[in-house]
Amino acid sequence: MAESTNMRLRLPLLCIILEVILIILFGTLVEYNDDTHAMLWNENRTDSATRNDHENEFYYRYPSFQDVHVMIFVGFGFLMTFLQRYGFSSVGFNFLIAAFSLQWATLMQGFFHGLHHGKIHVGVTSMINADFCTGSVLISFGAVLGKTSPVQLLVMAIFEVTLFAVNEFILLSILGINDAGGSMTIHTFGAYFGLMVTRVLYRPNLDKSKHRNSSVYHSDLFAMIGTIYLWMFWPSFNSAITNYGDPQHRTAMNTYYSLAACTLATFAFSALVNPEGKLDMVHIQNAALAGGVAVGTAGEMMLTAFGAMIVGFLAGTISVLGYKYLTPVLESKLKIQDTCGIHNLHGMPGVLGAVVGAVTAALASPDVYGHGLQRVFADVETGKWNPQSRGGFQAISLAVTLGMALFGGLITGFILKLPIYGAPPDTHCFEDGLYWEVKTFQPESGMTNSSDVYPFSPHKKDSKWVSGSVC
Amino acid sequence: MAESTNMRLRLPLLCIILEVILIILFGTLVEYNDDTHAMLWNENRTDSATRNDHENEFYYRYPSFQDVHVMIFVGFGFLMTFLQRYGFSSVGFNFLIAAFSLQWATLMQGFFHGLHHGKIHVGVTSMINADFCTGSVLISFGAVLGKTSPVQLLVMAIFEVTLFAVNEFILLSILGINDAGGSMTIHTFGAYFGLMVTRVLYRPNLDKSKHRNSSVYHSDLFAMIGTIYLWMFWPSFNSAITNYGDPQHRTAMNTYYSLAACTLATFAFSALVNPEGKLDMVHIQNAALAGGVAVGTAGEMMLTAFGAMIVGFLAGTISVLGYKYLTPVLESKLKIQDTCGIHNLHGMPGVLGAVVGAVTAALASPDVYGHGLQRVFADVETGKWNPQSRGGFQAISLAVTLGMALFGGLITGFILKLPIYGAPPDTHCFEDGLYWEVKTFQPESGMTNSSDVYPFSPHKKDSKWVSGSVC
Amino acid sequence: MAESTNMRLRLPLLCIILEVILIILFGTLVEYNDDTHAMLWNENRTDSATRNDHENEFYYRYPSFQDVHVMIFVGFGFLMTFLQRYGFSSVGFNFLIAAFSLQWATLMQGFFHGLHHGKIHVGVTSMINADFCTGSVLISFGAVLGKTSPVQLLVMAIFEVTLFAVNEFILLSILGINDAGGSMTIHTFGAYFGLMVTRVLYRPNLDKSKHRNSSVYHSDLFAMIGTIYLWMFWPSFNSAITNYGDPQHRTAMNTYYSLAACTLATFAFSALVNPEGKLDMVHIQNAALAGGVAVGTAGEMMLTAFGAMIVGFLAGTISVLGYKYLTPVLESKLKIQDTCGIHNLHGMPGVLGAVVGAVTAALASPDVYGHGLQRVFADVETGKWNPQSRGGFQAISLAVTLGMALFGGLITGFILKLPIYGAPPDTHCFEDGLYWEVKTFQPESGMTNSSDVYPFSPHKKDSKWVSGSVC
Repeated sequence: MAESTNMRLRLPLLCIILEVILIILFGTLVEYNDDTHAMLWNENRTDSATRNDHENEFYYRYPSFQDVHVMIFVGFGFLMTFLQRYGFSSVGFNFLIAAFSLQWATLMQGFFHGLHHGKIHVGVTSMINADFCTGSVLISFGAVLGKTSPVQLLVMAIFEVTLFAVNEFILLSILGINDAGGSMTIHTFGAYFGLMVTRVLYRPNLDKSKHRNSSVYHSDLFAMIGTIYLWMFWPSFNSAITNYGDPQHRTAMNTYYSLAACTLATFAFSALVNPEGKLDMVHIQNAALAGGVAVGTAGEMMLTAFGAMIVGFLAGTISVLGYKYLTPVLESKLKIQDTCGIHNLHGMPGVLGAVVGAVTAALASPDVYGHGLQRVFADVETGKWNPQSRGGFQAISLAVTLGMALFGGLITGFILKLPIYGAPPDTHCFEDGLYWEVKTFQPESGMTNSSDVYPFSPHKKDSKWVSGSVC
Repeated sequence: MAESTNMRLRLPLLCIILEVILIILFGTLVEYNDDTHAMLWNENRTDSATRNDHENEFYYRYPSFQDVHVMIFVGFGFLMTFLQRYGFSSVGFNFLIAAFSLQWATLMQGFFHGLHHGKIHVGVTSMINADFCTGSVLISFGAVLGKTSPVQLLVMAIFEVTLFAVNEFILLSILGINDAGGSMTIHTFGAYFGLMVTRVLYRPNLDKSKHRNSSVYHSDLFAMIGTIYLWMFWPSFNSAITNYGDPQHRTAMNTYYSLAACTLATFAFSALVNPEGKLDMVHIQNAALAGGVAVGTAGEMMLTAFGAMIVGFLAGTISVLGYKYLTPVLESKLKIQDTCGIHNLHGMPGVLGAVVGAVTAALASPDVYGHGLQRVFADVETGKWNPQSRGGFQAISLAVTLGMALFGGLITGFILKLPIYGAPPDTHCFEDGLYWEVKTFQPESGMTNSSDVYPFSPHKKDSKWVSGSVC
Repeated sequence: MAESTNMRLRLPLLCIILEVILIILFGTLVEYNDDTHAMLWNENRTDSATRNDHENEFYYRYPSFQDVHVMIFVGFGFLMTFLQRYGFSSVGFNFLIAAFSLQWATLMQGFFHGLHHGKIHVGVTSMINADFCTGSVLISFGAVLGKTSPVQLLVMAIFEVTLFAVNEFILLSILGINDAGGSMTIHTFGAYFGLMVTRVLYRPNLDKSKHRNSSVYHSDLFAMIGTIYLWMFWPSFNSAITNYGDPQHRTAMNTYYSLAACTLATFAFSALVNPEGKLDMVHIQNAALAGGVAVGTAGEMMLTAFGAMIVGFLAGTISVLGYKYLTPVLESKLKIQDTCGIHNLHGMPGVLGAVVGAVTAALASPDVYGHGLQRVFADVETGKWNPQSRGGFQAISLAVTLGMALFGGLITGFILKLPIYGAPPDTHCFEDGLYWEVKTFQPESGMTNSSDVYPFSPHKKDSKWVSGSVC
């Protein structure tokens, strides 16, 4: 009755076709930029060879790139391992769709805002931007976690990356706004896109998999690996593509303080909303990160540590309250099944970040920034700069982003609803065994259960289909 | 009878009050420094904008900062997950008190040795210093691990950070000594402070929780994540705030060789002290790191790889022997219950590091250092430099540090003894369920136990109070 | 009957003797280089002190070094924790032999290609090279994983490091070829050396430990930590010792794209070769990395992202197919018991990388590289450069490497076969309890099994010998 979830043809076919298309497009369109091309780098330098190598963008950006890379693959990947039976899929599908998205993003972002005589020039900055776009897809993945096949996820990534690049083009190139850490372009976009997708894919009978939609002791510890890496490297994330020098330095520091304040708010409100005063791992794993999201736009500005800490504290607070009070309502009233609670970690804090960015931009003045003003706000140089209109454009960008995300998510959701992708049945959501070879062990005599091998819920009914086929 | 451990009011109240105070003080006292301020950075540069950005301290220090940051949050956090039922608290409380301490340390360190016209200037160097101070608090945390409430830990952090800053001020600003990697300021201070606190908090009936005060298979693997990260990034830790150029480079390398030699000593003595020649995870997790502690002072000097390896080998040896023979005696004779054995990892190796630093400083000469002498020993420039007196000051600093740590720990211990913090009862030490929501699972028919959900000791008596209240 | 596996004397004796020899040799032969020596660094600079510090090789290389370091200790260490009962040994022995090998490699590599007036000069580049050589030993460790004692592994490391240095000397110094990321020197050499060792150590009765030679759910997640770190930091690995500027930048980017393409190939073929279309963790953990191996030689050349993606896609494909179809044949026909399947991850992709490198070198021309040609191919400066002969030398190097590896592995294998190292009996391979203190827990009443303490196969027969002695 239910659709077959066998991936034997669907997944290989899609992966191979996509990769072949990517390779052809890269062969046609992509070139080394001035800093990665052997001829161009060595021609452009007036001086002797070794002297100026430290000015290659590699040395300014590569450490930040690697931190961002860790956030994308370890941070997002392990954060989602909190589910008891879904660790392979969390880390594995995260890996797959990220590896695809970063290639596709290089093309889409290059096409929309980086063509040089018809060619896309790549270097470490394009690598960071591609990872950023990938982050947006992984945020959306959090909303549908456990309820989608890998084929669905790849299809979602195709559309989301494309729309991300369009939205980014409108914001950065047309409206000319600031969003170095992506409060809008990455977090708000990824969150509302994903929420709309999961709304369209609403499963009224998801209760049948309810017993698997929670954590166990060790899966929560694996998830903390993801959390801590995201938390530590968020300063690198927000500062990775700002201008060199003071903006990069300042952004990292503002983010550091915002996160620290956010963490105290998270612990405070997590204990406060629990009748017994006990801390909830869900809050610590997620809400403590909201401070990074919320200074994604204003972080490069003269927000001050003081301002960053206020923003971080607010972000942690609304995030915990969202998990406790809003998520259940979204599910019951709006039919939004948000597995990871991305609305609380990326949605609301992203909007907060956009607002803080608009206000901070509107308050910017040469009295505070001096000659550094033009290094933060590019339009100072063109003479068109005006802090109030700049603040207004920032606000408009939030509206554009929300619209693009919701509309894009709606379309994509309906495309993903087609019964051709091998989506899991309601009875087998949040379950690795559907798409992964989960080894079954020959129990030796003397063993009363097999919990030590496949450690979760080893009840009879399930263990049969794990090693066989479901449908 | 026992004090209630409910955190519902205590923890939120303390967190919120502390964060509000921090925010007010940051708003009043903290300013961007020359390298993070948009106006100042762009004014101070004589040249054109982009040329000199690579001289921003960000590019010299930020990769080291991130490595240190990983040590603080992943290293210390996961190292302490070795306990079977205390993983949430180990990583979670580590997270909380670190996030608080780095903010408080910024203020205290700024107040004692960084005021500029009444303002504290912040940048990546102050971030590293704040993380260093935090490390000291986390070392002390290791001694009381499993026996304190999060409220107690925050109160401990308030006092310890303050005294750390005073001690650091005496050593670095008054005595003018060298301690780039903090053998004294961080490790010796943190260890003896923590040991004194745990002495004052002595629990004669801790045996009641004995069955939880040990590791299980997977908890030891989680702990190895912490160990390996600490080990790998210790070269960055010791070199993070040395002078640029050769001192930073040399410090990293000396630490690298010290740790390698320490690791071989650790494996050797771990097998040697075991009757069956089996290796003990406790030794590998901890003693292999002692080599980093022991070159914390001398690492920036011309210690040579040869010298570093000797020091590392000695450190690993005394650390293993300490775990095997000294820790049981400290507990039985001196009533010092040192959960993580910080005396073996930070205490003795810290003292060794101080002694090695004093000797290496006393042997320093212009014949060896050339013009580099003044880049390691600041007082060369002032003309007051004399290697023997320099060595003497280093030795005096060790005594000062020990005195400050023991006295501070004594006072703090008595403050923490007040029955108002919700400390765990003797019967429920080393137990996450007291302060964390540990999900209990509805066992389905066919499951004979619930060990796959909450994997440790799922005996009846316990499972009742886990989901309810203890006292 | 079987040899005693007690390590009480053997392991400490070997570790201490080796470390004492290392310390003596370091004291005699090793000196700080120009960038780490206080006198030399400050003399060599013509300018004022602070200006030129950014030209210290530390700032060009240290972030890459730390990424490589993470790959060696976390990457290799955790990748091998996939075995259900061998996590302590995987991470622990990896730690031990890496800590030894990096010291020994510093001496051997220094001796063969870095003597300055009879002294070995060390700095961050020698540290990276030592870590590279260590990587080769860890690759071989993967082939014999679970079947060797730590003493055997140290003896293997002594020989392998030495032969690695000889082979590297022949390739880089005599033949003058390019192999920045070590497709040949590291991967091909390590793989075929290890395969030959495991061939000589063939165990006809390994079936007796078959039930332990597989993963369990959580051990596969721990292994994914290793995989993801290797994957993320491979761009740093391949670019760590290239020339500064465009070559370093380009190498990192080529590797990034190769790995992304490789990942899609891995998922595609993993599902395709499974009758139910299910993904296999073994493939994801290993084959997804083959793309990094396969651009180890050509990565610094003008391979283009397009070329890198083709190579990565091929590497992932042959690696999955190797795991599925070749490994069983190697075991049954050639008696090569390759625990981790290093032939598929390092062997075949390494050879592919060597071939790609030879072709790319043969196609190099000044039209493409401009003045950058001499920064990639050192012999351009000497005037001896000729792309075809260069390509030929690259090909010859592959043959030399294969010969050295197979011959060296043969000799080393026979040395390791001596019954003096406490190797595990056939019945107790892949078992931590043999060499590690694995805590046994006092089961409390109400516990029906002890699976929550030592979670794997807690059957009676085993639990006895775990806490006692085997033989």
